[in-house]
Amino acid sequence: MVKNQIGREIPSEIADVFGVFEGQFAKKHDYQRASGQVHAVVPGESKMLYSVREAIIKSGLKDGMTISFHHHFREGDAVLNMVMEEIAGLGIKNLTLASSSIANVHEPIIEHVKNGVITNITSSGLRDKVGAAISHGLMENPVVIRSHGGRARAIEKGEIHIDVAFLGAPSSDCYGNANGSHGKATCGSLGYARVDAEFADKVIIITDNLVPYPNTPISIPQNHVDYVVVVDSIGDPNGIAKGATRITSNPKELLIAENACKVITASPYYKEGFSFQAGSGGSTLAVARFLADAMRKDGVKAGYALGGLTGHLCEMMEEGLIEKVIDTQSFDRGAIESIKNNPNHYEISASFYANPGNKGAAVNQLDVVVLSALEIDTDFNVNVMTGSDGIIRGASGGHSDTAAGSKLSLILTPLIRGRIPTIVEKVNTVITPGESVDVVVTELGIAVNPRRQDLVEAFAKLKVPQFTIEELKEKAYSVVGTPDPVVYEDKVVAVIEYRDGSVIDVVRKVRD
Amino acid sequence: MVKNQIGREIPSEIADVFGVFEGQFAKKHDYQRASGQVHAVVPGESKMLYSVREAIIKSGLKDGMTISFHHHFREGDAVLNMVMEEIAGLGIKNLTLASSSIANVHEPIIEHVKNGVITNITSSGLRDKVGAAISHGLMENPVVIRSHGGRARAIEKGEIHIDVAFLGAPSSDCYGNANGSHGKATCGSLGYARVDAEFADKVIIITDNLVPYPNTPISIPQNHVDYVVVVDSIGDPNGIAKGATRITSNPKELLIAENACKVITASPYYKEGFSFQAGSGGSTLAVARFLADAMRKDGVKAGYALGGLTGHLCEMMEEGLIEKVIDTQSFDRGAIESIKNNPNHYEISASFYANPGNKGAAVNQLDVVVLSALEIDTDFNVNVMTGSDGIIRGASGGHSDTAAGSKLSLILTPLIRGRIPTIVEKVNTVITPGESVDVVVTELGIAVNPRRQDLVEAFAKLKVPQFTIEELKEKAYSVVGTPDPVVYEDKVVAVIEYRDGSVIDVVRKVRD
Repeated sequence: MVKNQIGREIPSEIADVFGVFEGQFAKKHDYQRASGQVHAVVPGESKMLYSVREAIIKSGLKDGMTISFHHHFREGDAVLNMVMEEIAGLGIKNLTLASSSIANVHEPIIEHVKNGVITNITSSGLRDKVGAAISHGLMENPVVIRSHGGRARAIEKGEIHIDVAFLGAPSSDCYGNANGSHGKATCGSLGYARVDAEFADKVIIITDNLVPYPNTPISIPQNHVDYVVVVDSIGDPNGIAKGATRITSNPKELLIAENACKVITASPYYKEGFSFQAGSGGSTLAVARFLADAMRKDGVKAGYALGGLTGHLCEMMEEGLIEKVIDTQSFDRGAIESIKNNPNHYEISASFYANPGNKGAAVNQLDVVVLSALEIDTDFNVNVMTGSDGIIRGASGGHSDTAAGSKLSLILTPLIRGRIPTIVEKVNTVITPGESVDVVVTELGIAVNPRRQDLVEAFAKLKVPQFTIEELKEKAYSVVGTPDPVVYEDKVVAVIEYRDGSVIDVVRKVRD
Repeated sequence: MVKNQIGREIPSEIADVFGVFEGQFAKKHDYQRASGQVHAVVPGESKMLYSVREAIIKSGLKDGMTISFHHHFREGDAVLNMVMEEIAGLGIKNLTLASSSIANVHEPIIEHVKNGVITNITSSGLRDKVGAAISHGLMENPVVIRSHGGRARAIEKGEIHIDVAFLGAPSSDCYGNANGSHGKATCGSLGYARVDAEFADKVIIITDNLVPYPNTPISIPQNHVDYVVVVDSIGDPNGIAKGATRITSNPKELLIAENACKVITASPYYKEGFSFQAGSGGSTLAVARFLADAMRKDGVKAGYALGGLTGHLCEMMEEGLIEKVIDTQSFDRGAIESIKNNPNHYEISASFYANPGNKGAAVNQLDVVVLSALEIDTDFNVNVMTGSDGIIRGASGGHSDTAAGSKLSLILTPLIRGRIPTIVEKVNTVITPGESVDVVVTELGIAVNPRRQDLVEAFAKLKVPQFTIEELKEKAYSVVGTPDPVVYEDKVVAVIEYRDGSVIDVVRKVRD
């Protein structure tokens, strides 16, 4: 057992493979980029195949290889299950599934693991039944959880080598030029998929909307694509993207958002041309509304918003409050319409967005990020992966990427959820290390990370109650009591890879 | 000495290195893509440097390395000379210059060769004094001439490994996001530069127009860029791009264009949704005008035009005669304005455009291409490189790429130029092999390549006189006499690499 820099115990056999976390920027990245295999396509040769099955066969997929999918279709995705069923039918085994993330709808994965089709998984997140099954010891080998930036880094450094990428596309032409903004079931940005297409050996575009050559805009270019398959449906449009999320009416969430807005506008970063990222959760979405009000009042205009984008932020751009948005994942219909129609809404790849190992990711330029948490501890470590029962149900996402890259990271969380404290002595699972976290914002007030004395001073006159993180924890514990620790077994079911490739934590099997 | 498939004599020591041409699609390309080195950039780290000199030093450029430039600034380029002067001043020697092409304005290269700063050159073309100097034996090592697609292939296969790319950009932000459509001196598409940025170890953006982050649209993304340098001027806007070229009023050129238009419209490819490429030369530009008239009359609309784009083709798109244009190089102001403003004018990289070694280049999808020639011989081999005096003055460009990829390639040429026949027994230098050429179009009539019996039949009733290529040659010779052969010495001054990497020809030193 090895203790990493934040005191998490990592089994030696895992530490030996990945190395252990030593600080958010401790690891230097100097390397030659990985690259995929190319089989040149000559004039007259068609890339169009008749079925997913034919594509799998033509791709040369074999036992032990690594396959990938993107998660832009979220709970509407039909591609992963469709492809996995064919792969299973072909008797191919022992695959590594390297999806950018895994949704509830991908529950059939459980059977594929049981049948030996899938023996390794790497993903940003695991939801619902798949997460629960894995937390209960479904797999022999631990899942490797990677952030969006960390996954791009792992691919570009060759730590994940994708043999075959199966990439669903809302539109494609016969040569594989694909985008996510046109079609029957649109998802907007194809930012995650772009990395897979660039670095995989074989790339198969699966679409339900074949358009004349050349399809534009081009998110995935033809020179990264081997085959194109047309299917009846890549997924359920309503599962892929929902309409605009209504701003929360929960008074506690609104209070948290209001406090967060006060923190942002009192910070030294709030000025003409500033940049921010805010997600789609209850409080974080509401922050954008309060921030918009403040920006109108103060006459401050943001240079850009980075995302994970919601339609709300796109409306702020339309209104002139934000100059541009750059987008690796379009969260809702509003964002999808925006990327289709507004040239100032620009698609970026997951590597461009957040890869800590490239020549400079967008998160490095970010002023402010507004994030959420399942738990945060008195070292400011954040858990967005496991529930208070220790079961995997979340996703690493861009949490640690944006927290590390931004100048000001806010973690928005209620003090307690139900009868469970969110501010705790020690989080179940660390996704984002405390050194990346600047301010915790609750309905009662805020706690500034003592590492940021500059912010402590900047917020001296802030009209939001300020506490130490220990005080916030005590307040939570005083209401609901000290939580019982989750009882784990020794078996590691998930390795939490920090964005730099080191192990920041592991998740152990929960006791049945 | 080795004879290649088209009978050109290649010295064994060159044949051993490159292999010899064996047919346009003889060579199969199965390989792992090359890739560049990465040194990761962390938050707070700046890419901005104070001078070109500092950038050269920081890049680690050393004796014997390979440097690259793009030729989007044409005769207006100030970047190559500026950088080379600093490199020379730093005493760095023995470099390989791997520009996408070299213009007249780059005459200082001659001194850099004489001083040992540059000892190898690869380029699409060599103009004027540089070409003449090389043809007279300036360099010890032969220049390697590559087509636009061939250069991209060589880079992606690792045959050209760029240590440092110096990429002029009409606009860039502090992180290196660059495009060619906004700024003081715009060039439109940055299609050639994109390949260098993707595969070079170190990438330096040189701009005279620093804009707020994030600069969009993004032709070269920040994750491919190491440093950014701001200079007073990247070049002369009037040299970079001229206004619309007037359609020729030369009756012979108009007649050739009219004949070409008749060939195209009588071909089986002329139908709704067809695609074509036509360059900026006298007759080829005029073809677009005649073709536009025919399309209006026939109610035929093109799916796309590929380019090398002129403003004339963009106007055809505005008019609705062409659905989209995809663009690796914007030839004039009209094309530059179009790519800036029209989302159906889409930038593509040189690899996407023409690389025969990738997963499918745009030229493979092309129906019709209209090309010119300095000479064409009775085997239909085309020379666009050396003059009738044997001196290098042209460029390989996309000639062999589009001729090979397209379904119908037309070579437009007057029968004679001045007192010199253009249709000859044997061209001085082969850039495009006869098997890629379908129809030769002159003012007197056409010659269909007998390899294309389908076209011979398709054009049976064409109202343009038809001849054999030998007959056309005889007509030319009967007017101006049989040309005297150019007298060469043995020394090879240029290797003509076919797009697949094999040697299709060599250029020898002219006798002084």
